[in-house]
Order: sequence, then structure tokens, then C-alpha cells
Amino acid sequence: MTAPPHKAHPAGPGRALPDTQQGMRRRNLARVMHTVSAEGPLSRAAVASRIGLTRAAVSTLVDELIRSGLLEELGPERPGRVGRPGSALAVSAGGPAGIGAEVGVDHLAVCAVDLRGRIRSRAVHHGSNRGRSPEPVLDELAGLVRRVVTESTAEGLWPAGLAVAVPGLVARDARTVVRAPNLDWQDTDLAPLLPLDVPLTVGNEANFGALAELWLGEGAPRDFLHVSAEIGIGAAVVVDGKLLRGTRGFAGELGHVPVRPDGPACACGGRGCLEQYAGEEAVLRAAGLEPGTDRVGVLAERAADGDEGVRRALREAGTALGIALTGAVNLLDPESVVLGGALAGLAPWLLPSLRDELARRTAGPACPVSVSELGSEGPLLGAAHSVVRAVLDDPAAVAERA
Amino acid sequence: MTAPPHKAHPAGPGRALPDTQQGMRRRNLARVMHTVSAEGPLSRAAVASRIGLTRAAVSTLVDELIRSGLLEELGPERPGRVGRPGSALAVSAGGPAGIGAEVGVDHLAVCAVDLRGRIRSRAVHHGSNRGRSPEPVLDELAGLVRRVVTESTAEGLWPAGLAVAVPGLVARDARTVVRAPNLDWQDTDLAPLLPLDVPLTVGNEANFGALAELWLGEGAPRDFLHVSAEIGIGAAVVVDGKLLRGTRGFAGELGHVPVRPDGPACACGGRGCLEQYAGEEAVLRAAGLEPGTDRVGVLAERAADGDEGVRRALREAGTALGIALTGAVNLLDPESVVLGGALAGLAPWLLPSLRDELARRTAGPACPVSVSELGSEGPLLGAAHSVVRAVLDDPAAVAERA
Repeated sequence: MTAPPHKAHPAGPGRALPDTQQGMRRRNLARVMHTVSAEGPLSRAAVASRIGLTRAAVSTLVDELIRSGLLEELGPERPGRVGRPGSALAVSAGGPAGIGAEVGVDHLAVCAVDLRGRIRSRAVHHGSNRGRSPEPVLDELAGLVRRVVTESTAEGLWPAGLAVAVPGLVARDARTVVRAPNLDWQDTDLAPLLPLDVPLTVGNEANFGALAELWLGEGAPRDFLHVSAEIGIGAAVVVDGKLLRGTRGFAGELGHVPVRPDGPACACGGRGCLEQYAGEEAVLRAAGLEPGTDRVGVLAERAADGDEGVRRALREAGTALGIALTGAVNLLDPESVVLGGALAGLAPWLLPSLRDELARRTAGPACPVSVSELGSEGPLLGAAHSVVRAVLDDPAAVAERA
Repeated sequence: MTAPPHKAHPAGPGRALPDTQQGMRRRNLARVMHTVSAEGPLSRAAVASRIGLTRAAVSTLVDELIRSGLLEELGPERPGRVGRPGSALAVSAGGPAGIGAEVGVDHLAVCAVDLRGRIRSRAVHHGSNRGRSPEPVLDELAGLVRRVVTESTAEGLWPAGLAVAVPGLVARDARTVVRAPNLDWQDTDLAPLLPLDVPLTVGNEANFGALAELWLGEGAPRDFLHVSAEIGIGAAVVVDGKLLRGTRGFAGELGHVPVRPDGPACACGGRGCLEQYAGEEAVLRAAGLEPGTDRVGVLAERAADGDEGVRRALREAGTALGIALTGAVNLLDPESVVLGGALAGLAPWLLPSLRDELARRTAGPACPVSVSELGSEGPLLGAAHSVVRAVLDDPAAVAERA
């Protein structure tokens, strides 16, 4: 056997990094953090049995996490007693916090969430951002972030990162807004415009909304399609508990799926895209209403009052959503579809025709469609929690920075 | 701090299994196998530097893989010389083999592929399987498998597994064909019908075709949509080098994405599905041809001969594919779309209108569409190589069975 073998198999993803003792330690620190976060308060022995390591190994990991301020011991202090008391462990109420921010079309919002998932500080500013250039908007946002950071510092927290949700396409660098049509922003790197001393991540609002649903939603499945809307229609695809981002970071553009290929022209270059039937402007037009502020609120109010024009417009939007979702469900086979954001508030009038259309076009049982309980809070919470999750996922990295 | 913390974060996927020395060893064995498979022949020192472990650690792993018959040393033997010669390592030409099989509408095929990716034995049976019940078809297939196993055993190989590609939906148990309309099979567990002494995996042909493209295609990206056709139209979604399977295992049903929502009724319950415009029956009907055997061959031949009716039918099928793919590209943001299976043979007449439609409906540069070089061989090769990959991914499991 001297001939060189045929190179049939390019190296798999697994070979990038060696499995070292150091890497194993980091992953086990993460397991301890996730276990205490999900099921705590827990004793060291309980953590050990849950993650399948010896009590001694877990104690070493726990001591390190306590020293870094990521875990703390609860229960009565028993000073003077020899040996470690059997008191329960919890993730710290102090220490690192996730700062979430949202650039909405009609508001700015910032919040700080601690490792226990509690909102510890919050600031909101109402006012239209339509057509405003990025600089003044982000200047205002930076002011809100500073206020929230100051407040949380006073409570013993420190900002582990800042995640900003925007209503637009974000490049895979997680800094650059490629296109946010409703703000009229294009190819804008937000990092230099947010000169804060905190690691920055920028993401699409539908993506952060989907992550909030995954992490905070009651009984959220690990495979679902999250559809949301502010002005446009966005979606996020969650597969096995992870966001599907796409090659350029643009996955989930449900708003530009063709619904009627010969329909009205769309700004994207296509025709008959979903947004031409179910986007906010299209629904307002179909309902004979003028654009104004809080458009979704107006639609919901009129529909609730029995306005037949508004109800018809929402029914037709539901049908268009049902057609687009039939295609998405066929491609992705998700466990469910969740309506979030502004769509959640309009669900009573969208859902019947949406579900009808989906059922009519499906041979077996149709994919279930539910409504997010987080509503318009999703993107902001998802952003803040994404920072917290990153701490739980690699506590060693945070400990080094603490 | 005595209040129980808020349970904001359900345990992440990482906590399922502890990181043990044993698990680390298994993963490092896989890294050695993948590295030698992709870049071999390599010396022990070269393997060590590529995966970032010490030479001593790599030698221990390599010795274990040689003892299990998964690696072998090439180069001149130097008996009598003290110490280990610096000869290069390669994956074994003997040892475990992947057995791939395909149940086609018009043929059955089986092959054996060794760890080096070479086809070592092969058997094909032509003849229509339309409307035949599963038992006789699988009886015939089992005969072909036995023949291929016997032949490869004579060459020093042993079957590590059998993977069967079928033109239909397969449940996540990887045994049950839920629906294969062109064979007229439904809810059929193939395991009892293939009583062979080899671990069995059943999968959708488009999925195996996509895996073949990923593993064997020239410059295949790690994020792409693979579209193929035999009679129906199937697709497979590859994300970051992995197949997106869907909750029930049904992801990739591109054939039932609505193209014209008020179009002709489809067997799936929908209307105006892609299959109604680009499926084989629809194209034959549009071209004014009678169904027969080797339908795709007939279409390609007539189109090449300049038959305007056939060309028009294929052009229209390309347009419908373009509309459906616009939706898919918007949702998934893949790096490219690859046409495989029967579509590869018809590409010269489908591609122009398909690409036009996609470009017309896309704001920026349209997603590139290419044609698979594996053509109709993809599913069979993908099936066999999936067994080989499983050996590379966990050589320790195979060593225990060897």
C-alpha cells in the first residue's frame, strides 16, 4: 500500500480546535453555570449529580465561579463552623449584567438584565426615528445606555456587553446595518457611533425577538419560525435551539417571499411580495386609513370596534401570511409558527384566515400557529438576554475580564 | 440573599453530557481520523501539528486506530530497525466500508465505499418500481446488498452500515417511509423488510444527494440549497455543513411551495404548488408528451433536438422554479443553489428562465445557481459516504464493533 489515498473527505468541523484539559475546564464551567441558572438554588452535590462529574471536580469549578463573582452561596451563614456548609448555590444577583437596547421606528429603549434574568434598570424614549440619520439617534441611544449602566453599577452590577436590536438587515459582522428601510439607514457601522466601553453586538429585531421566545417563552419549542412585524415583516428561523442566520446574516426575510408572483411591485425589486399584502402600509391602505403614529394601535382599536374595512384588510393580510407560511413550513418543517411583535396585537383578526389558508394547503395536520406572550417586548429582552447567555456559555472568558 | 433566584434560563444543550477524559479521547480519535482522511498521507508529527496536540498524545491515538484497522502505515517497511519508522499514515483501504443503496422509481442500486472514499463494489438493477409493493422491491434490494457485501468481504472489507435513499418523506426514526407518492408507499418501516446483519439508516434521496454535494462536490459551500427531482421535486437545506432535517424529518419540501396560489389543485391539498409547474408530469403534459420510461432522457433529447414545445415547457418550469426559489432564498439566505438529480440533465433549458426570475425578484446580486456534477449518482454516493463519515466521526464506536 504505497499509493496516496483518495482525498474524499475534507476535514470536518470538529478538527478546528484540539480537545485540551483547558477547553474541557471551560466547557465544564459553562455546564455548572447553566445548571445552576436553570435549576438553582442547588447544592454542590446536586450539581455534581446533574452534570455527571464527581463532587470534588464540581467543587473546584464552583469555587472558581464564586471567586469570579458569577455564583454565590445562599442560605444561613455559619461562621466559625469548620468545613464548607452545605448551603445552596445560585447565580449572582450582582456581577455581570446584559445591556439590551432597541432602535424602534417610534421609540428607543434600553434595559439591564442580571444573571438571574431580572430587569434591574430600564429607560425608554418615545419619538419617531423615521428618516432621522443614524448619528443623532445613536447619540440619544448612547445617553440612555449610560443612564442604565450608571443605575446598574450603583446596584453592584457591571455591563458584560451591549446588544442592540434594529429593524433591518444586519451583516454577519454584527455591527453593520446593511439596510433598515423604515429608518432609511443603509450600510451603517454602528460601532463608531456608539463609543461606549462595552463589547457591542448589533442584530435584527426579529432575530432577538425569536431568541427571547426561545429563552423566555412558556413551552417554546426548539424548532420554530418566529414572525414579527413593526413596519415591515420579518421572521427568524430557530433550528434545534439556534438561530439560522444565513450566509450574509439575512435569513428570515419572509416579507419578500412572493405570494402572488404577478402582484404589485415591491421596493425589493420583486412583485407580489408578502409585504405588499400584510405589511403595515399595505394594511393601512387596504383599510382606507392614513399613516400616522401608533398605526398598529389604531388598527387593533378599530378592528376591536367592529370596523368592517379594517377587519377585511386584516383578514386578507392573514390569508397572504398563510400562503407565505405554507411555503416556509414546507421548506423548514418547524414544530410551530409564533407570531410576535406588532403581529401579536393584531392576532385576533389575522389568525383565523391565516390558519384556514395553512390548513387548506396542507395534506396532514397543519403546523400550529401561536401568539407570543412577550409581544413588543421580545426584541429588547432578547438583546439583553443574549449577553447574559454569552456569560453562561463561557464564564471563564467573563471571569478574565471581571 | 436568601430568595430563590428567578429561573430565567432553561439549561442549554451543552449540559446534557459531562466532559470526561473518555469523551475527550473519543473526540480526539475522530480528529485524527478526519485529518488523515482529508490531508493524508501524513506523518504522526504532521498530524500532531495540524490538530494541536503533542506528538506523544497523537502517537497513542494513532496506535489505537492502527490496532482497530482504521489507519495503516504506508511507505517502505524497515524491519529490524529500532524505533518507529517515520512512514506516513493513511486511512485503511481495508476495514469498515459504507454500503449505500438507492430505491429509484426506475432502478435499484447498491455500492460499497471504503474509508478512502473509493467505490469497491457496485450492483444495479433496472426496471420500474412504480406501484410495486415494498416487499418484493426490498427483497430484490436485499439481494443486491448481499452481493455487494460478499464482493467487498472478499477484498478485506466489512460493512459498517447500510444507508438507503428513497424518493419520499422519511420519519426521524430513519427507518420509516411516511410517504413516497411515486412508489405508492406509505407508512412503511423498512427495517423488518431488510433483514440484513448491518445497522440500517433510511433517508430521503434529496438529502443524501445534498450530502454527496457537500462531501464530494468541487468547492461546494457549507450553506446551500440543493434542489433535485426524480418525478417530484425535492430539496435539501444544508446549513453550516449540516442537513436541516425539520421537526418530523420533512424539511425541504420545495415541490409544495405555492407558486401561484390560485393555480391547479395538487395532491398535497394545496393549489399552484411548484410541482404543478415543474414536476415531471406537469412538464410532460405542457410539452404534449406521453408518460413512459426514461422521461427525463426523452425531454433532454427533444430539447436538444430543438423541439419548441419541449423547450417552452422547460422554460416555464424554470420560471416556476425561480419564483419558488426566490422565497426559499429570502428565508434561508444560502450561499448558492445547486441543481442536482434529474434537474441537472435538464439544466441547459431550465437555467436561463430560472436565473432571470431570481434576478428580477432580488434587489442586490441574485443568489448564484449552479449544476451538480454528480448528477443522478448523488443520492447513492451520499448514502454510502454517510456511513463512512459516521466511522470518521466516531472511530471508537466502530473499533468496539470491529
